Formats: sequence, structure tokens, C-alpha cells
Amino acid sequence: MTERHGNPSGEDSLIARYFKPLASDPGAFGLDDDAAALRAAGEDIVVTTDAIVEGVHFLPDDPPDTLARKALRVNLSDIAAKGAMPAGFVLTLALRGAEEAWLKPFARALGEDAAHFGCPLLGGDTVSTPGPLMISITAFGRLPQGKMVHRAGARAGDRVFVTGTIGDAALGLDVLRGGPVEAALADDPAGRDFLAARYRVPQPRNALANAVRSHAGAAMDVSDGLAGDLAKLCAASGVTAVINVPSIPLSPAAAGLVARKAIGVETLIAGGDDYELLCAVPGDRADAFVREARRAKVAVTAIGGFIAGLSPPSFLDGQGRELALKRLSYSHF
Amino acid sequence: MTERHGNPSGEDSLIARYFKPLASDPGAFGLDDDAAALRAAGEDIVVTTDAIVEGVHFLPDDPPDTLARKALRVNLSDIAAKGAMPAGFVLTLALRGAEEAWLKPFARALGEDAAHFGCPLLGGDTVSTPGPLMISITAFGRLPQGKMVHRAGARAGDRVFVTGTIGDAALGLDVLRGGPVEAALADDPAGRDFLAARYRVPQPRNALANAVRSHAGAAMDVSDGLAGDLAKLCAASGVTAVINVPSIPLSPAAAGLVARKAIGVETLIAGGDDYELLCAVPGDRADAFVREARRAKVAVTAIGGFIAGLSPPSFLDGQGRELALKRLSYSHF
Repeated sequence: MTERHGNPSGEDSLIARYFKPLASDPGAFGLDDDAAALRAAGEDIVVTTDAIVEGVHFLPDDPPDTLARKALRVNLSDIAAKGAMPAGFVLTLALRGAEEAWLKPFARALGEDAAHFGCPLLGGDTVSTPGPLMISITAFGRLPQGKMVHRAGARAGDRVFVTGTIGDAALGLDVLRGGPVEAALADDPAGRDFLAARYRVPQPRNALANAVRSHAGAAMDVSDGLAGDLAKLCAASGVTAVINVPSIPLSPAAAGLVARKAIGVETLIAGGDDYELLCAVPGDRADAFVREARRAKVAVTAIGGFIAGLSPPSFLDGQGRELALKRLSYSHF
Repeated sequence: MTERHGNPSGEDSLIARYFKPLASDPGAFGLDDDAAALRAAGEDIVVTTDAIVEGVHFLPDDPPDTLARKALRVNLSDIAAKGAMPAGFVLTLALRGAEEAWLKPFARALGEDAAHFGCPLLGGDTVSTPGPLMISITAFGRLPQGKMVHRAGARAGDRVFVTGTIGDAALGLDVLRGGPVEAALADDPAGRDFLAARYRVPQPRNALANAVRSHAGAAMDVSDGLAGDLAKLCAASGVTAVINVPSIPLSPAAAGLVARKAIGVETLIAGGDDYELLCAVPGDRADAFVREARRAKVAVTAIGGFIAGLSPPSFLDGQGRELALKRLSYSHF
């Protein structure tokens, strides 16, 4: 953690006090050096980077502890999707000022997640900004040489699998913004809390990484909405897909809203911030994939198949009719 | 380069058009995947991260091509200081909007520097921000296992070496801000241009990496001013240093300003953004270090020595009197 252009007023030492305890990896050198060292004994290092900006990717009043977890977990999710095991991360924080009341819970939650997912803080940079808070993380994973799982490996005939449940986070964002979902759940505080938590703290599926690497031909995490991200995976692989919408796994909260027609299923399919995994698994690997997922305690659901073709993926309802999706992806721009 | 939450209006494709050509490394997968792969055949991967923020680390009217070079080079400088060879980098850009007139020269200059320094773009993230432009780079270097050069390796008796010339960038910043240095150089446009260029485009000393790894016991780059960074290296190593100020290498422009008493030498010693290397070299390695630096065509100068003690480093003038430094480091806060 080099605080370039740091001031002598104590902000540096404040930052050091909270982040040094997270730098448990020997390659972090206690954050006292200008760089970290990542030992790689013949493995490939997978590198991914994701930044979140106040007012764009999170709400100004989001609590610092959930922000810390989200910033790390969106990166852990990419590591999992590539079939790699977490190896560490570097953090860049752009702050208007270093406030103890914010840094303390932020660093504590980040440390808890780093320990839980086996992904230690290796280094970072703290800069001052007159603008919005920004948290940028570059995370590393390890996997055997040449074994990274790509977007571009789906083949016609492969099954489409997703983890967890789809669409909760988009509903949670609506709840936090006081939108129509919040109104529809006026009498259901537990439902509101569940959905808000799904938005604020994604559950990266790192426990599934070995199953993904062993069985999936292609994988990515669903960050911009299932429909849009599936379209990207299809385009990268040169195939298309047919999705059976009633098979898409929904949480009880989301399913209840659909059943009451408070929302359309399109909202769930196009909604962002799921951070579930989307995997292409060859038919003859599907059973083994499901078994291994069960052992890893990660719910996986087959929702359709990849087929030949270059058109956008189709989403079919229970009667085999194609859903017309107004938009594929959530967009912040 | 995953543009999370990208819009469908063409900004994504604009970004892809300019950055894809930079992703020449096979591990970048043409920026079409969610992560990059860094092959490490038994080597350690050195990781460093540095961010620059508009209005804090650079001026709002700084040209995009020099910004690109500076953002990459401040990281390359850390890689060099650790004795490693550049291996690649990931880029996070926080933009108010994607403008071709800005992206095109930015990406072109970044690509030129990436090729020149053998440090290819591996991936990144582009996010929108309502605030200042921010460029965050995490760069990677390779070196033999366990051979990273640390801050903490200086020993009493080692020589203090620096590369290049010290203090130019701080003067260049003053020129660009229209401060007293600009006024003092009213009749010297070449001097003004030289100093401004030293601020805008640092010269990372990657050619010296092997010499640093072979001979230096400790090293870091000088980003916050020679006095402050030397104090940090001394503190990390548990030693102090005595610097002979007349030995500090100055450019003709800086030396001229000192000779005319337009500035004091303290301005140079405390000024930031040099991105020269500061090295601790044992006495019996000094000749070999200088010879190897000469072969690498990097100017190195011995400016003093490390001695036992824990007090701040002393800066002695030509008469052996200690300079009283008002501040050790440049601070943006």
C-alpha cells in the first residue's frame, strides 16, 4: 500500500493501521514495499479487474462494510468463472478524505472476506479525489497452465447452467431506490431485506471453480443481466442458445413478485448485479457437473441449451412462445 | 477489457476499437474474456498499482497522450525499482464519457509505450463517473523466485545512488501552473518545455532493472521527492543516510535556476514526480553497478552514504552544513 503523495497529517498512518492487518500473505511484505510478489510455481496467474464508483455502481449511502465485500466479490466472481482459485488482490481507493468512521468498517469487512475466500490483500494505492468515491480491485487467481475457462468455448449441444437465483439484485436495487418493487413489498420487510442484501453483497461461487474447470467448456459471471451476458458468451463462442424461462431459478421473493404480476420475468432476465455463474457444459458432463456442484454446496440449474446459429439467444415461456426483451442488459451509462 | 454496465450506444465498441490493438499478448485473449492469463514459469510475478486523478495528480488540460504515458510509466518505474522485467498491465479508466478525440491519442500513446517497454495491455475495466477522470494501472513484472529488491535492504556503509536528474518534474509542474519558475524562465522557452516534459512524461529506468537486481541491496523509485522517499527507505531498512547536496545530479535547467537563486535546492530535493531510482549499493558492488548502468545507458550518480542510526537523513551543503528542509515530501492532500 503505497500512499503516494500522502500527507503528513496522519491520513497515511490511518490507512496503514487499517489495511496492514489484512496483508497477511508473505508476498505482501506488510504493505511496506512498492510492490508485492506473487509466487507462481508453474501455474498460470489469472488477472481480473473491476472498479465500482459511488453514484454509478453503488449508492452514496451504502454501508462501507457491504461496499468492501461487493468490491472484492465482483472480482472473486470472475476468478471463479475462469475456474481459478483466489490468490490475492490489490486495492486502489480514491477517497475525498480518510475518515476513520468509514475506513474502519470497510477494512474490517474486507479483511473478513479476504480471509473467508483465501484471497489476501497484496498491495494498493490510496489517492485523494475531489469526486465520487471509487474502489478498484485487481484480483489474481491460480490455475494449472493453459486451463483457464473462456467465454469462447460453448458448443452447440452444450447445456446452459446457472448458479443460485437470477434477478434478485436488480430487485434489491429497486428496493433501495424506493421504486415499484419496494412498494410491492410494503408488507414484506424480510423480502425487502433479502433482495437488498442480494444487491449489496453478492455471493461469488468460488466453491464451484474446480467443477467449472473440470466440466465447463465456457463460463462467465452474470454481472450485466442474464440475457445480455448470455448473448456475449454466445457471440464469443459462435453459437446461440434457447432458454426455457420457467426453468430459470428464482428466489421465493422474486417468484412471489412474478406470481403477483408485480414485475415481469423480463426484469429478472435483464437485471444486473447477479454475480452468479453462467456455464456451458457438454451433455455428457452434465451429471458429473451437477454432482460436483452438490458436493461444493452450490446450487446449479440447467435452463436451456446452446444450438448452432448466430442470432441472439431465445427466451421461451411455458408455452414455447418467445419473450420479446426490450433490453438485454442493465446499463449505467 | 470488460466494459461492465456498458451502454449499447457505441461507447463499448469505441473503447474496444482503440484498446483491442494493444492487447497483443496471447494472455490478453484479445480483451474478449473476463480475465487475462499471465504465464509464470517458475518466476515470481511482481505486482504494483498506481492511480492518477485529474486535478490531483495531473492537470485538467494535460494532453491525453502524455497522460497515457505517465499512467503507465509511474508503474513501470516501480517494476524497475524492484529489479523486475515488465510483463504486462491492466487498465481501469473512469471516464465521464467516451470521447473519440480523447481516447484515440490516449490509446495510441499507451500502445507505443507498451510496445517500447515490452509491457502489453492484458485487460481492464472502463467505468463511467460523474467526477474527475481517473486512470488506474496495475502492472506486472517477472523476476527469478525470491529475487525482488526491497525497500528494507539498505545497510550502513552502502552508497546512495540515484538515476538521472532530480527535481525537474517539480519545476515542470510549477511551469505548467504559471508559478515563479515559469516567470524565472520567461526568456527560456526550451528550458520551460524541458521541465514541463519531465513532469508530464517520466523516464522509467527499466533498462537498469538487471543492474539493480544484481547489485542493489535496496531500491525504490522517487515519486514523492528525494528527501521524503530516502527517509522512507532509511526507515524501512533501519538506517539513516548522509547526502552531499552538491553531488545531487541536476539538469542544466535546474542547475541554472539554482545558480541564479531563482529557486533553492530544497525545492528540488523535496519536489515530487521524479520517477528516478534510488538505490542502496554496497561499496564493493559500486564499481560493477556503475559499469552495468553505463552499458544500460542509464546515468547513475553516488550522492552519499547510508550510516547507522535512526534519525532522518541529513543533507549537507558544500561546507558540510546541514540543510534545514521545511518539508520532506510533496503532498497533494
